[in-house]
Amino acid sequence: MAQRREESGIAMELVTGGAGFIGSHLVDALVKNGKKVRVLDNFSSGRKEFLAHHSDNPYVEIIEGDLLDPEVLSLVMEGIETVHHLAANPDIRLGTEVTDTDLKQGTVATYNILEAMRKSGVRNISFSSSSAIYGEAEIMPTPETYGPVKPISLYGASKLASEALITAWCGTFGFKAWIHRFANIVGPRGTHGVIFDFIHKLKNNPARLEVLGNGMQEKSYMSAEDCVKAMLHLIEEVDNNVNLYNLGTGDTCSVRRIAEIVVEESMLKDVSIEYTGGTRGWAGDVPKTSLDVEYLFSTGFVPEMQSEDAIRNTARALIEEIGL
Amino acid sequence: MAQRREESGIAMELVTGGAGFIGSHLVDALVKNGKKVRVLDNFSSGRKEFLAHHSDNPYVEIIEGDLLDPEVLSLVMEGIETVHHLAANPDIRLGTEVTDTDLKQGTVATYNILEAMRKSGVRNISFSSSSAIYGEAEIMPTPETYGPVKPISLYGASKLASEALITAWCGTFGFKAWIHRFANIVGPRGTHGVIFDFIHKLKNNPARLEVLGNGMQEKSYMSAEDCVKAMLHLIEEVDNNVNLYNLGTGDTCSVRRIAEIVVEESMLKDVSIEYTGGTRGWAGDVPKTSLDVEYLFSTGFVPEMQSEDAIRNTARALIEEIGL
Repeated sequence: MAQRREESGIAMELVTGGAGFIGSHLVDALVKNGKKVRVLDNFSSGRKEFLAHHSDNPYVEIIEGDLLDPEVLSLVMEGIETVHHLAANPDIRLGTEVTDTDLKQGTVATYNILEAMRKSGVRNISFSSSSAIYGEAEIMPTPETYGPVKPISLYGASKLASEALITAWCGTFGFKAWIHRFANIVGPRGTHGVIFDFIHKLKNNPARLEVLGNGMQEKSYMSAEDCVKAMLHLIEEVDNNVNLYNLGTGDTCSVRRIAEIVVEESMLKDVSIEYTGGTRGWAGDVPKTSLDVEYLFSTGFVPEMQSEDAIRNTARALIEEIGL
Repeated sequence: MAQRREESGIAMELVTGGAGFIGSHLVDALVKNGKKVRVLDNFSSGRKEFLAHHSDNPYVEIIEGDLLDPEVLSLVMEGIETVHHLAANPDIRLGTEVTDTDLKQGTVATYNILEAMRKSGVRNISFSSSSAIYGEAEIMPTPETYGPVKPISLYGASKLASEALITAWCGTFGFKAWIHRFANIVGPRGTHGVIFDFIHKLKNNPARLEVLGNGMQEKSYMSAEDCVKAMLHLIEEVDNNVNLYNLGTGDTCSVRRIAEIVVEESMLKDVSIEYTGGTRGWAGDVPKTSLDVEYLFSTGFVPEMQSEDAIRNTARALIEEIGL
């Protein structure tokens, strides 16, 4: 544990996974809003450089620790107003090969967080859920009221299990929760996902881009910046016991189009885009997701970027970060 | 492990929690249908006497083992056609005091079952979920399509988490599942629940019956016999990838009325029924549940008993079992 600073009496926000992709954007936004922030991260996919620009800020604490270590958890709760629980395995595909990662890093980690909160008297939790919980929804765009939800990936299962734990802690122990069902979130510092993969593939072979599936997979994409703005907007604006919202832009983009955008932004010439075929990229990949975000919009939130803009922006930033 | 008999090549049904309340009724029904049955139970709430009437039946194997022991799990999968996964902590209230029981005996146990199935090539699972997953639903009677589901008890959370794991194993590893969202199931051999509690209270004090809450809690009740019939009916009749149904009678009964019925069946005179007050019996108790069972009925299933009959029948049987 590094850089732990204590100033009791002043409320602080805890961000689990705060050194990760979305987590580090949330830390940026919280700091911008004048908040004190404590980050808990095990740096399995998070990176120290994602928070390097806060290294001189005495209001940003970084604690290296794991959500499966109960001792760390009770320590980090001191003085916390709201827990922003973003830590999780970020790689949906991993579940097809290793089946206990999402259970441990997702479901059990969320249980540990809730228990540490309960024991420390912290009662507010904001949680990054996912559109993956809907599985192959029969209604699109899919509203929050859709049911029954049947996740088809182990990642989606762990997100739904975490939602359930959170609502149970609200119902049984008086917690208050904001549950955000994320579209695909993209942006600078991305550590996984389709744009990230495409750039790495082009780095390995600038002549050929292999796309898993037939490229017709179509999903909602939202910029990380819009995503964390929406999260904080909801915490500010809605105040039920459980506040559960889809977070997205309202439109979709196909994987085929993403491949084209990444190739355009790469400035590479004569890239051959090749498809492995089939409707999904891997077992557990949902071919089409489209989130109904009217409920979010009804709170007055408007995203700055639509899916294609968010993707292009991300491609540009990640090409810069990864190098081609 | 006791009484393990192997006859490879002949399909068998595995019932986890098969010595428990509903599990033992399911074993009875499977045996009646001419099936070979293997029971796995840790006898934490299940009882050997619930299966005593099968002790001479060579087609009923009883294995004492825990779902948290991976070694036992891989052994019991041999030759299994369908896993009927009923094992769980049966006491919803326990979650208010001990928070990891439902996580371990529910969510993690289901994960262990699914993994053992995957490794052994067993692909069919029938799972006892619960109306507790709906929490305090805003639509009643509540259909399977209701969302978002927000369980308020730790038990409900573990059932929803287990559903999610099961649909993920269907989506990722080609499993087939029947998920049964039970109303309150009552009947002979009940080991917990409101009727069981009332009889024990009357046994301790035949003059006074204390009812938790104001007695206005109102729920759907179904007889254990109808419940296991419905489960087997669905496995027989519906054949999607994931088959998810509410199981209940379509009517409800109040806790106040249950108290009256139990007192009537007790033959005790001048019992004073007293209410502790408040809309719920305990934190996490859902004051009113009413399941929409049209989807079940559309498959041709008709329960033999409505809620009040099931309750009266149960009161009579449990008074006989427990003694007054």
